[in-house]
Amino acid sequence: MPALERHDDVFVLDLGDTENRFHPDWLAAVNAGLDEVEGAAGPRALVTTATGKFFSNGLDLEWLGGHRDQYEAYIADVQVLLARVLALPMVTVAAMQGHVFAAGAMFSLAHDVRVMRADRGFWCLPEADLGMPFTTAMTALIQARLTPQVAREAMVTARRYGGVDAHAAGIVDHAVGAEELRSTAVELATAQAGKAGPTVATIKSRLYAPALQLLGDRTAPRS
Amino acid sequence: MPALERHDDVFVLDLGDTENRFHPDWLAAVNAGLDEVEGAAGPRALVTTATGKFFSNGLDLEWLGGHRDQYEAYIADVQVLLARVLALPMVTVAAMQGHVFAAGAMFSLAHDVRVMRADRGFWCLPEADLGMPFTTAMTALIQARLTPQVAREAMVTARRYGGVDAHAAGIVDHAVGAEELRSTAVELATAQAGKAGPTVATIKSRLYAPALQLLGDRTAPRS
Amino acid sequence: MPALERHDDVFVLDLGDTENRFHPDWLAAVNAGLDEVEGAAGPRALVTTATGKFFSNGLDLEWLGGHRDQYEAYIADVQVLLARVLALPMVTVAAMQGHVFAAGAMFSLAHDVRVMRADRGFWCLPEADLGMPFTTAMTALIQARLTPQVAREAMVTARRYGGVDAHAAGIVDHAVGAEELRSTAVELATAQAGKAGPTVATIKSRLYAPALQLLGDRTAPRS
Repeated sequence: MPALERHDDVFVLDLGDTENRFHPDWLAAVNAGLDEVEGAAGPRALVTTATGKFFSNGLDLEWLGGHRDQYEAYIADVQVLLARVLALPMVTVAAMQGHVFAAGAMFSLAHDVRVMRADRGFWCLPEADLGMPFTTAMTALIQARLTPQVAREAMVTARRYGGVDAHAAGIVDHAVGAEELRSTAVELATAQAGKAGPTVATIKSRLYAPALQLLGDRTAPRS
Repeated sequence: MPALERHDDVFVLDLGDTENRFHPDWLAAVNAGLDEVEGAAGPRALVTTATGKFFSNGLDLEWLGGHRDQYEAYIADVQVLLARVLALPMVTVAAMQGHVFAAGAMFSLAHDVRVMRADRGFWCLPEADLGMPFTTAMTALIQARLTPQVAREAMVTARRYGGVDAHAAGIVDHAVGAEELRSTAVELATAQAGKAGPTVATIKSRLYAPALQLLGDRTAPRS
Repeated sequence: MPALERHDDVFVLDLGDTENRFHPDWLAAVNAGLDEVEGAAGPRALVTTATGKFFSNGLDLEWLGGHRDQYEAYIADVQVLLARVLALPMVTVAAMQGHVFAAGAMFSLAHDVRVMRADRGFWCLPEADLGMPFTTAMTALIQARLTPQVAREAMVTARRYGGVDAHAAGIVDHAVGAEELRSTAVELATAQAGKAGPTVATIKSRLYAPALQLLGDRTAPRS
């Protein structure tokens, strides 16, 4: 299950050591971590990472299969989490030590900066192969981060990007060795911890206004 | 005149061996080809190419000169064709063996992937020189494909991009030798034929919603 | 104070030899220069540059401190100037010989092309550090020019880009030696002087419609 630690100015959120799919309990634990991060004061930044082979594989399709009547509420909860990370009033860094798929990849895009392991693991939006089109709101999130060419390739062809290719495509900002992954992310976050606060909150709310409104951010201006 | 052939999973639409301007008969023939492509079932993809020195020079200004009263209906028909290609429920590849100008260049942008001959031929939006500003809908199509910097340069300065420059600018995805052009396009299309279907249709309808709505796509959601 | 000269087809607007902050008198002088540029006929283009260590440091915070009741009107005036440059019916080139900060950086983004000195000077949006979030309209202007990745980095982290880094990020189109700066800009402008006129005006009004409407361009279509 997700767990939060603080090291000086940097909160490190570990998404877990399984496939880290978005089970309702997992969503609750991540939201609890974000409550703590948001509730803290002073300089701070967030690094999100995980343990083992997966960063996150996204939606919990097994749980969904048993709760089809809750599909819409579940997707809404996922989208509100994406909005929450996107709008977080501090710099956020995803340190992707393993596979990053589907809604897990969108969760990574909600962060300001992405650092990916160069030698193993894929970043992929497999929705075109799964028969699960992106919602309008998820589409807006992806378009808020990627160039038109890369958004098209990632969304229409479901390409699997290794770290080096993901860096070349501008999906991730850095591709580094596994042993440097977390330290690189923490270093990037530490350098930006002083940015935390209401100014960055307002900057982000305007920069991502269309995506935030569609995702259902509860704090975004509605006009 | 445009002609359609099928090779295994790939439909190849040849736009003709003239300047391949958008005469009403040419539009009808292209639409008939697209009817066949859309009506087919199973894995499939589209490669659009042409024969000779031109891929397409765009609007049929000579025909327009003799039918000025039909200007608006003609532009609407052209835009609906652009929307149709943009929304096609399969992967589409433009294999540009010759010059690609004006609305011909926009037609190429409606495809998912562009492959251009590296050694000869230009891709160009000459509207700034012709005194014919882009419609709002055409502007949205161009912006859906290109980075802000390249859209600005292409639209405001009417730069002629050879294949290598077009590749560097991200206008085309591949610049290859003339003898490899069609085979490269068919190979790219074949690899994505399995994507054809309603999921990709929905993904594209959301990814390009603003451009599709302005171009007048008849199947796009209106909200 | 700002001064305008004409060399053949190129108007050169020098923003001054101080920090070139947007004092109301400075705004009036720049607008007077633009009146002359717009009122001229025939082939023409604009190069905007300055003298000394600064291109422009943006808002005149000292003047604002003494005129807080005029804050909204002042910001509106600044935004209308940004819109005016963005919509200018000719090709515009910013030749940045010194520091380019905050609203000065946004003013540079309102130009079609940016040329920056490679060896000294920074381009920076320090708003996240100043506690002054970008207005919605300024956000739209920045997003109309930069890729999503660079807009995010520049706006959220307030990174200072030297000329070489600004070129790598696509913020500027050319980074050159100090002695070549103005001649490079004039050469680029001269080559595009023939584009001046109503077609480019319409192309720009549609290409930048969202930013122009938010900035308060008085000539932009409102639909």
